[in-house]
Amino acid sequence: MTDDLLARRKRLMGPNVPTFYTNPVHIVRGEGVWLWGADGTRYLDCYNNVPHVGHCHPHVVQAIATQAATLNTHTRYLHDLVLDYIEQLTASLGHGLTQAVMVCTGSEANDIALRIAQAATGKTGIIATDNTYHGNTAAVSVLSTRRPPVGGYPDHVRLVPAPDMLRPVGGRLEGQSQAFAANVARAIHELEQSGHGFSGMMICPIFANEGIPAVGPGFFEPTTRAVKEAGGLLLVDEVQPGFGRMGSHFWGHEWLGIAPDVVTVGKPMANGHPVAATVARPGIMAAFRNAFGYFNTFGGNPVSAAACLATLHVIRSEGLQQHAAEVSRHVHERLHSLRHPLLAEVRAAGLFFAIEFVLDADMTPASAFTESLVERMVARGFLLNRIGRHGNALKIRPPMPFSVENADMLLDALEDELSRLPVMAP
Amino acid sequence: MTDDLLARRKRLMGPNVPTFYTNPVHIVRGEGVWLWGADGTRYLDCYNNVPHVGHCHPHVVQAIATQAATLNTHTRYLHDLVLDYIEQLTASLGHGLTQAVMVCTGSEANDIALRIAQAATGKTGIIATDNTYHGNTAAVSVLSTRRPPVGGYPDHVRLVPAPDMLRPVGGRLEGQSQAFAANVARAIHELEQSGHGFSGMMICPIFANEGIPAVGPGFFEPTTRAVKEAGGLLLVDEVQPGFGRMGSHFWGHEWLGIAPDVVTVGKPMANGHPVAATVARPGIMAAFRNAFGYFNTFGGNPVSAAACLATLHVIRSEGLQQHAAEVSRHVHERLHSLRHPLLAEVRAAGLFFAIEFVLDADMTPASAFTESLVERMVARGFLLNRIGRHGNALKIRPPMPFSVENADMLLDALEDELSRLPVMAP
Repeated sequence: MTDDLLARRKRLMGPNVPTFYTNPVHIVRGEGVWLWGADGTRYLDCYNNVPHVGHCHPHVVQAIATQAATLNTHTRYLHDLVLDYIEQLTASLGHGLTQAVMVCTGSEANDIALRIAQAATGKTGIIATDNTYHGNTAAVSVLSTRRPPVGGYPDHVRLVPAPDMLRPVGGRLEGQSQAFAANVARAIHELEQSGHGFSGMMICPIFANEGIPAVGPGFFEPTTRAVKEAGGLLLVDEVQPGFGRMGSHFWGHEWLGIAPDVVTVGKPMANGHPVAATVARPGIMAAFRNAFGYFNTFGGNPVSAAACLATLHVIRSEGLQQHAAEVSRHVHERLHSLRHPLLAEVRAAGLFFAIEFVLDADMTPASAFTESLVERMVARGFLLNRIGRHGNALKIRPPMPFSVENADMLLDALEDELSRLPVMAP
Repeated sequence: MTDDLLARRKRLMGPNVPTFYTNPVHIVRGEGVWLWGADGTRYLDCYNNVPHVGHCHPHVVQAIATQAATLNTHTRYLHDLVLDYIEQLTASLGHGLTQAVMVCTGSEANDIALRIAQAATGKTGIIATDNTYHGNTAAVSVLSTRRPPVGGYPDHVRLVPAPDMLRPVGGRLEGQSQAFAANVARAIHELEQSGHGFSGMMICPIFANEGIPAVGPGFFEPTTRAVKEAGGLLLVDEVQPGFGRMGSHFWGHEWLGIAPDVVTVGKPMANGHPVAATVARPGIMAAFRNAFGYFNTFGGNPVSAAACLATLHVIRSEGLQQHAAEVSRHVHERLHSLRHPLLAEVRAAGLFFAIEFVLDADMTPASAFTESLVERMVARGFLLNRIGRHGNALKIRPPMPFSVENADMLLDALEDELSRLPVMAP
């Protein structure tokens, strides 16, 4: 059956369509933190952040079903739900971020964020890190180094080295914050020299795709100064850390201690229903709205708004942020007691964990070892994956209802696998 | 209440957020071809193509509710529904268009179509008409002339004059097909000279945003030859004409009689649920898949696939394409009997109608008159709008279940308003 589905995928979707795992799983049902395969296998979901309040949460499902049966139009007509939602979303953000554009994907949200920076500054240059991902539209995909665009990388994009505390610039941990900022300042200077000018810098405040490196609050301060002094906007992609996952804070930028000019939200926002948003301060938003006359047919429709409101309601009514903080502390403690010759570092950003494996003191990535570990954990019924530039860190990022008991199941299995898994060649 | 919503919109969304009508309507409920305002007013929906099989169609609502309660993940796991849908969708297309990328909006679908053309040809130049709209991402929004992008129009995009049979090139109708193709050939030559090269031309096969000008099958033949001879791809945006709306054909390109290299679908595809797709032949799709490693988190999720399958099922089981053909014939006949001094032309493309008004024999657009007519029709409970470069044509594009009786209600009211409405200054 799996082979049949793989053959059909190749025939109907083409080659190089990403799947997870050597033997991709065929999932047919979900509930809370659990997923079931077509063969009856039950998996503990230790990976998916999109089903934020748990797979198929009945409150969100009911909100979608009820609104879909009542009305589903667009924002060229007036409706209260989209406004109710923007009101609640922006109230949680602060920093004067009071206005939103509702769209359907994080990619669309970031595509707009780039144009907001351009409209507000009149310039086009943009900076990101060299190991990030902010989406898949033509405009934002060039912020990723995974594949070069046809026609080459555009000159208005400059990528700076991603933070990496295991491989610090200059070989020592002190001064990494300044070293990062110095690269940003250099990129700003280059953009200004090139004639593009500097419109803004886009970051994920926990550097999720960079592998949640062990940066902390304050790390970004020298960079913020460089960005602000150059008149650029700080574009903060909250698609991964947002909506309480940090535990200690509702948003990643609160944790990092920065004041964004623009915030984008997506994936977990409506528990899997396709919705996302770009939030900005009024003056900045007006620059964009007047420059582009933007309209998105599906963006902010009543069903999407109902799904967003229901998800936010569940996060609050079930105390999921506080829950994430508690489970994060427990997992982090247990991670620190993990022992393996290749284990280099364990890192946590709320309910988001990375466990990095290296082959030697030069921090040579143990990518094959980590891949093998993932496969063995999947075979035991735990869905997780890898993260970071070399895929040598386990990525654990479960739905928010993931409990201490779920965490203990995962960590018991992980300890057992680590005790069995031989040290492998790269 | 409406004033309050408008004030809240301005506060929460910013300025210049598009609404319809001088007094925007506040819609709270929909069923079939009917919408209800918050004040109890019932409107006949003569405008919306997104609720393709009728507002809140119970079969589609049920499919969404059932699947949302069962599983909603992504295509990195295997699932059959997305494959079932691509199989059915591509089976309806022909021309070897057997593979799809599932996304969330028509904008994302067209953003990919442009990159497919670039990946397949290794070139970047793109051609569209000068009065079109293919979406709102940074990459596709530059195909529209509504607002100039920050930093100016990019050099790799060339726009050719849109077809307009009321204002034909050279003043006579004969040879318009060749005149259009000559402009395309000139643009291709310019792109080749500029170094960008020519990757493809994107069109809506009924030129919907251009005002469904009175072109017919065969019009595009000389252009197709020019595009193919230059090695470019024909990118056909079926977001508006597709899924049976033409009545005579399931797709707009079938009606126009052209063989697309890439087809994009969106709006009506899942009756309002945010989903869209880009379809191409295997060789072309492989070029894209290998060049970009594209993945879309929400694209092709099981709920979206279920909504797509349900919509396609309703189109077929309720015979909506045949129904559209019958109602189109009836409306077209009645439109031809409309009389008004400013009436220049009535046009139909299946269940999509345009009624163009001009002030004089020089075809000066009667934009203010048309705007006033729209407002009066809305006040009578008929939702419709304007189309074309100068907004001087009524745009009538109802949900597919729109019946002969619905059409007669609309046309009786329209005849009455035309008999009352004085000839106005521009």
